[in-house]
Amino acid sequence: MSLAANDPSRKTWLAIPDNTDFPIQNIPFGVFLTRDDIITIGTRIGDTAIDLGALHQLGYFKNIPLTDDIFLQDSLNDFIADGRKTWRAVRNRVAELFDKKNNELKNNKEHCTRVLFTIDEIEMQLPVHVGDYTDFYSSKEHATNVGTMFRDPDNALLPNWLHIPVGYHGRSSSIIPSGIPIHRPQGQKLPKGADEPIFGPSRLVDFELEMAFITTDANDLGQPIPIDEAESHIFGMVVFNDWSARDIQKWEYVPLGPFLAKSFASSVSPWIVTLDALEPFRVEGPKPEKKLLPYLQTSGKKSFDINLQVSITPRKGEETVVTNSNFKYMYWNMSQQLAHHTINGCPVNSGDMMASGTISGPTPDSYGSMLELSWRGSKPLKLKGGEERKFIEDYDTVTMRGYCQNHEVRIGFGEVKTQLLPVFKSK
Amino acid sequence: MSLAANDPSRKTWLAIPDNTDFPIQNIPFGVFLTRDDIITIGTRIGDTAIDLGALHQLGYFKNIPLTDDIFLQDSLNDFIADGRKTWRAVRNRVAELFDKKNNELKNNKEHCTRVLFTIDEIEMQLPVHVGDYTDFYSSKEHATNVGTMFRDPDNALLPNWLHIPVGYHGRSSSIIPSGIPIHRPQGQKLPKGADEPIFGPSRLVDFELEMAFITTDANDLGQPIPIDEAESHIFGMVVFNDWSARDIQKWEYVPLGPFLAKSFASSVSPWIVTLDALEPFRVEGPKPEKKLLPYLQTSGKKSFDINLQVSITPRKGEETVVTNSNFKYMYWNMSQQLAHHTINGCPVNSGDMMASGTISGPTPDSYGSMLELSWRGSKPLKLKGGEERKFIEDYDTVTMRGYCQNHEVRIGFGEVKTQLLPVFKSK
Repeated sequence: MSLAANDPSRKTWLAIPDNTDFPIQNIPFGVFLTRDDIITIGTRIGDTAIDLGALHQLGYFKNIPLTDDIFLQDSLNDFIADGRKTWRAVRNRVAELFDKKNNELKNNKEHCTRVLFTIDEIEMQLPVHVGDYTDFYSSKEHATNVGTMFRDPDNALLPNWLHIPVGYHGRSSSIIPSGIPIHRPQGQKLPKGADEPIFGPSRLVDFELEMAFITTDANDLGQPIPIDEAESHIFGMVVFNDWSARDIQKWEYVPLGPFLAKSFASSVSPWIVTLDALEPFRVEGPKPEKKLLPYLQTSGKKSFDINLQVSITPRKGEETVVTNSNFKYMYWNMSQQLAHHTINGCPVNSGDMMASGTISGPTPDSYGSMLELSWRGSKPLKLKGGEERKFIEDYDTVTMRGYCQNHEVRIGFGEVKTQLLPVFKSK
Repeated sequence: MSLAANDPSRKTWLAIPDNTDFPIQNIPFGVFLTRDDIITIGTRIGDTAIDLGALHQLGYFKNIPLTDDIFLQDSLNDFIADGRKTWRAVRNRVAELFDKKNNELKNNKEHCTRVLFTIDEIEMQLPVHVGDYTDFYSSKEHATNVGTMFRDPDNALLPNWLHIPVGYHGRSSSIIPSGIPIHRPQGQKLPKGADEPIFGPSRLVDFELEMAFITTDANDLGQPIPIDEAESHIFGMVVFNDWSARDIQKWEYVPLGPFLAKSFASSVSPWIVTLDALEPFRVEGPKPEKKLLPYLQTSGKKSFDINLQVSITPRKGEETVVTNSNFKYMYWNMSQQLAHHTINGCPVNSGDMMASGTISGPTPDSYGSMLELSWRGSKPLKLKGGEERKFIEDYDTVTMRGYCQNHEVRIGFGEVKTQLLPVFKSK
């Protein structure tokens, strides 16, 4: 199946804003509520949302083998489970339908009314029902920064780090789409010098700039995924904010890892950009510094050049960009992560989400968390308007954005935007 | 709603074996394939499986508000989400229908044929679709044994252990019902004295004797569950074998906790015994050794007296019981676990599974893992027939059983039985 949808010369008959994240070469997938309160799977070109459920009912996908209700669902899981050949066929058909030279939908005003919405008319939902969520720890710069701060600058990386894409299981139930506010979590913290913990609101709430990939049904219990096949099981990616409470984490995490410091919320950008759409932006990742065991060896361009940005907007104030990073800094690539995750026979299902871990770049203005940007609070960041931030404060909105750009096309993820509210008060 | 189903004097018109785990006072819930290959929710009395889907279609639940298809599902999630009042009403009605004095079903041979199966005719499934799985670490004896072996006998417990029911997120996708064989996992291990890891089959595959509780939809994002309400959100319990690969675990688990050492498989007993059925077996747990923060304080009988047993059966050999433990040894109770899990606002959904962690008792013959029973392999166990075991060998079957017993009634869980096969070979 060709990647015809990626043709950079294609133009669309839809009006699109300059510099949009969603040109006709993107064609991401998401789930939304329409103005008629119907839930459907859709895509987006420019600022127009396209109801794929309605398009399918109107017969526009008649040459692709799809079940009748494949798009009339509250998650993409079943569509993703249909496999790469199907995703490609649908993306190619959408590109064809909205191509400037194609009149079959364009000239049918009634159909256009049923199928097209402005972005303001719809309400984006979580795109998948996340069966299992895994968080990796795959940025060497981030792991080094954390090891330097909390352990030993001379031995910042633990002995396993250069051999294993270290990861841990996370909580699926608290993954939310962009736009849903969260509450500052409470929990146990050990005050400096104290023997006994105290209870109260986390004072060190932080974002973590990550990306996550979404898988299809990949393997059965007991059967590893060979590294060369890994990418064929990856549907696409989102920008991922792995909210963290540093004080809760410090007290709880030994010996079984982070738990409540993470499980209060993780927020994602609602449009899944397919791995296919990212194809023009492949790059090589960093060279391994140790010889890898064969099941983790890859060659060629297995990473992607994706610009990432985080901003903070106080309740009454302007938005300030606090970091600029890039997915290409990741030491471990997605193929390695998926091969490692399944080497023990762990089954991976459609809709599983695997996040990268905090993506820090090499310079202090490219770090992916406030912990690193403010260096444990020792170097507060100045926001426009003069306020300072060591960590995230009540009513701050954190916005993450991601996009790829070359001389021909820009493929973006839109944003994941989340406001932190004060501690929840029961009535 | 009364617990009429628990009446210890009630007898059933079904034939039941002596000393069954499933008297008419139990009435657990499970999912099975019938002899006609129909999937349904059912219960069990003695060695008779009862198709609740068929009973409902025949009108036997007409006085209980239930949707038509509530039992004709491949998981209990929706039924559990209906809440405690509904579970109790159904359990009471089943007790009434199968009461020796009740002829309404008994005398209808045609209905009996549709509704009743022998245990051999059905195939048990996983009882719930597990949204999220959490594993606690709540046995003080187990945490002390592990700390003594791997760290320092004088400081075996880490500083947070007596303040927090320590837990971590586990992998849902590899939870399987009793009877499904698993493969020995492969992965990275660090040989003694080596600097670089090697790849190969785990040589230290172990069971962990645990129990798990299953929740209903309990709270929204951001809203903690008060500890006094926790039990009302617990549907019931199963026996849980948290398979572990000790050599993989040792190399991978710093700093984010166990990952592939656990995610290759966890097996569960297929009948969920309701918390209501366990009511006669309430006991107080161990007294807290430290003053707990208010959100973790409980009083009264919040634990349960549940006898637990593990056996090993080699490929050609007899079954040998290797440990006898009890759920009542748990230092942290389920109310504390659920209150802690949600104190940060983490949402808990119907079908979530929360396991206890290895349940070790105070004496060496009550430890809950081979790691402890063989004390890291230094004291091999003798099996009947003369073989020795430090850990689990290929083709061994591990069987776990659990039951409560007083002078009036025995309420059991049946068993979870899993065979370990050699490493998976791709064709």
